[in-house]
Amino acid sequence: MTDPRSQLSRADIGQFQELALALAGESRRMLRAVVTDGFEVKRKPDGSYVTSADLAVERSLRRMVQERFPAHGVIGEELPRHLPDSDFHWVFDPIDGTEEFVRRIPTFGTIIAMFYRDLPVVGVIDVPLLDDRVHAGFGLGTFRGDKRLRLDDIDASTPNRAVRLSMSSRMNFMHRRDHSAAFEAVTRTYPNHCVYRSCYNHLLAATGQADIAIDMSNPIWDIAAARILTEEAGGAFSVVDEFRYEGERIYSCVFGRPALVAQLAAVFTAAASGGVPANA
Amino acid sequence: MTDPRSQLSRADIGQFQELALALAGESRRMLRAVVTDGFEVKRKPDGSYVTSADLAVERSLRRMVQERFPAHGVIGEELPRHLPDSDFHWVFDPIDGTEEFVRRIPTFGTIIAMFYRDLPVVGVIDVPLLDDRVHAGFGLGTFRGDKRLRLDDIDASTPNRAVRLSMSSRMNFMHRRDHSAAFEAVTRTYPNHCVYRSCYNHLLAATGQADIAIDMSNPIWDIAAARILTEEAGGAFSVVDEFRYEGERIYSCVFGRPALVAQLAAVFTAAASGGVPANA
Repeated sequence: MTDPRSQLSRADIGQFQELALALAGESRRMLRAVVTDGFEVKRKPDGSYVTSADLAVERSLRRMVQERFPAHGVIGEELPRHLPDSDFHWVFDPIDGTEEFVRRIPTFGTIIAMFYRDLPVVGVIDVPLLDDRVHAGFGLGTFRGDKRLRLDDIDASTPNRAVRLSMSSRMNFMHRRDHSAAFEAVTRTYPNHCVYRSCYNHLLAATGQADIAIDMSNPIWDIAAARILTEEAGGAFSVVDEFRYEGERIYSCVFGRPALVAQLAAVFTAAASGGVPANA
Repeated sequence: MTDPRSQLSRADIGQFQELALALAGESRRMLRAVVTDGFEVKRKPDGSYVTSADLAVERSLRRMVQERFPAHGVIGEELPRHLPDSDFHWVFDPIDGTEEFVRRIPTFGTIIAMFYRDLPVVGVIDVPLLDDRVHAGFGLGTFRGDKRLRLDDIDASTPNRAVRLSMSSRMNFMHRRDHSAAFEAVTRTYPNHCVYRSCYNHLLAATGQADIAIDMSNPIWDIAAARILTEEAGGAFSVVDEFRYEGERIYSCVFGRPALVAQLAAVFTAAASGGVPANA
């Protein structure tokens, strides 16, 4: 079956990417301003943080999409879906890592993606306080600024303890679905791990600063840009678990350097099903 | 017994602190320059990285100490001890988080401390790419720039999953001594954890950006500044494990907001001895 994205022209994809970068610029400008000027913080019913900035950024990005592409749908973390039957969907998490934002830890950021028939066409992750941004378009490659990114495999003789894994915290292995056995197996197999929220986790995987990443039990807005960013850099992306929870589809994903993705996915799957993978 | 540090005058402590800040300034200048200009990378026999910059910074800091206080001893990660019988010792890790430095992840930094009769008198952690620095002097308080830092306890009703724990990776719970049971217990009890190398981990604990921290199985140069930075901010610091390994004393430490330090230390100790703490 042909990839539906190949029906899109290079010029169209270029225009979508242009808007995605404009959205990232607007989000960065707003977030840097509120870091200086201050913002209101509340706790959501699930205990997670939401701030006045999450809502303000999401409203602003929605407005920009609706002005430029009024027939396109929008899915965002904080507000209801817009035009759910459209073939085109913009997906954002205005502040991914709201707790980092509240605590002034500079690895929070904005996740932006556009999907055509449920397949990612463009993706951007912007980390405003680190002045860091990666972007990708289908068939156009993955870039950090002007620099094209390529995810080669590492030497197959590299021991697991020298592989750098970026992962979600144990919280993500516990909420929505209990994956404690997978947490144990993954950290035992790849003990040289760091832990970040989605956006910085995905940025490190796309740039190769982490060799591989696993991000657990997230709705679409958290994971929206990771696949296109990784695949357009020559990496692999694999959904290792998927289920419905409180009306949203929830995804657990492994991505990064291709050979390592296969190995980590096998470690995860064996632990999740109670077995031990042959190659661990 | 009187704290031997109370024999030191405020003026002397001020002078030590002044030198410690000058060392941090020199280290920052050198590290920012090599990030731009490039550096050589090698693997040590244990698989960890060392770069030409680690050695260059340590030599420069040693020279500055020897010029200013020729009778003081020096302990650094990369070179042999100097004047081990002195009552005064400067301790540094020129680049803590060398893997981050090599991968251009901006949370690496320099750890600097001065000890009098094995008790910390001044401590500085500098994170050059984040333009972040904390410093403390015995009796003088802990500061980030001009801002004095204070670690209050959090509301006792805060659930564990809302407590932010900063910790070392599983690697540190495995090398030198196997603390897998403690890794499991600590992450299960405080699942909202992040993972950093020592310097950024200790900075987050000293500033309260993390509520509590655990750093496992480190020699003195990794942990050198954490105690004085935490205690002078009103926090607590506890050594939960200590042993000798290849000629060095190795420490595992818990530090941060006082009530949480007692709770986390109890979780660690119970797991390390095979039991379950009453308050977990």
